[in-house]
Amino acid sequence: MARAIELYFDFISPYAYLAWTQIHRLADKHGAVVAPRPILFAALLDANKTKGPAEIPAKRVWVFKDTFRRAAYAGVPFAPPPAHPFNPLLALRVASVAQTEAQRRLAIDTLFHAVWGGGPGVTDEATVRELLTAAGLDGDALVEAAQSPEVKACVRARTEEALSRGVFGVPTMVIDDELFWGLDSFDHLERFLEGRDVLRSDELSRWRDLPASSQRKAVKSP
Amino acid sequence: MARAIELYFDFISPYAYLAWTQIHRLADKHGAVVAPRPILFAALLDANKTKGPAEIPAKRVWVFKDTFRRAAYAGVPFAPPPAHPFNPLLALRVASVAQTEAQRRLAIDTLFHAVWGGGPGVTDEATVRELLTAAGLDGDALVEAAQSPEVKACVRARTEEALSRGVFGVPTMVIDDELFWGLDSFDHLERFLEGRDVLRSDELSRWRDLPASSQRKAVKSP
Repeated sequence: MARAIELYFDFISPYAYLAWTQIHRLADKHGAVVAPRPILFAALLDANKTKGPAEIPAKRVWVFKDTFRRAAYAGVPFAPPPAHPFNPLLALRVASVAQTEAQRRLAIDTLFHAVWGGGPGVTDEATVRELLTAAGLDGDALVEAAQSPEVKACVRARTEEALSRGVFGVPTMVIDDELFWGLDSFDHLERFLEGRDVLRSDELSRWRDLPASSQRKAVKSP
Repeated sequence: MARAIELYFDFISPYAYLAWTQIHRLADKHGAVVAPRPILFAALLDANKTKGPAEIPAKRVWVFKDTFRRAAYAGVPFAPPPAHPFNPLLALRVASVAQTEAQRRLAIDTLFHAVWGGGPGVTDEATVRELLTAAGLDGDALVEAAQSPEVKACVRARTEEALSRGVFGVPTMVIDDELFWGLDSFDHLERFLEGRDVLRSDELSRWRDLPASSQRKAVKSP
């Protein structure tokens, strides 16, 4: 059986979009498969009581510049969605509906392109139906299924699962329970797949057991 | 006159350490000079009411793994300091004392190595004096000067300046008022230095003017 690269992602993140456009090539190269794990990024931020990159004005500007440049280098279409942040739940749920892996990949491709590839976004239900149908999927059935209690619960459960595994951001790739966060960890992931990871567990334990000699005061409420 | 790459950094950050070990080669290659800007990272977090990577337990583990791997690829010595977080003010102040640029570079080299290169850290005053002296600098004079009101004010002023320029993290490189955040923005910086930046200002304005159609609730106090 092929090794699975689990990809935790949310459509809200342009880095997750860029990772999605590149992860299949990397997986193919190493005889691995991609297992998509749609989760709600906002819930990770809530759980960690921290802010997302787009919630800090100067960082928001950087995120756009950085992802615009990376998309250009990679030759991937890239444009801001009609609004951001937006509510990604409908899209996350569509991506979580029971379907074949080929259909799921096509649905995620379609939804990501609608957000970051110059499309109309994924917040309007009728638009999402049309986009999926135009891609060759059954848009009506997918959107209907997306609203079932089971699928809603699936997105919540996946998000809880992600948190319990130590996922704190998107995209996060997991293979053999080793986490790789961010587009810029593809090099690490590739070395890991090749059995060439340099990380030493004794060094990691040393870091884990490190005392703090100074602490910033807790983050105040804005 | 050579173009200056301003480097905003704090000794607390392993990414800033790795950037420091690589920025001079990049600058040399492009006939630029590095202008070190020591700032207090914790003050950026305070101003943005957010958490640093080491303040989120799962992210703290990732930061170590990521920087350990990057240091290994780059062939740079890397080991956790005796404690982390620690108070970096003495080191930031030593790096801010009036001295020749060659002396300042040597002082910063010495201090960074003491933190992330397997050394004894930079929180103990006697240790810092000794390290600087062993590196060929006047450790006693530097540590004394570091405690002057002028130098303390200099670190505060630089940190305020950084915030006013849109710096939100370290390392941040600034050239011609364009900000490049993080070790993984060296590619962007290099293209910018070569006049090959792909960023289009019309696309950037579109992103800046984007409405939000959904917002997460404000971060609650822990």
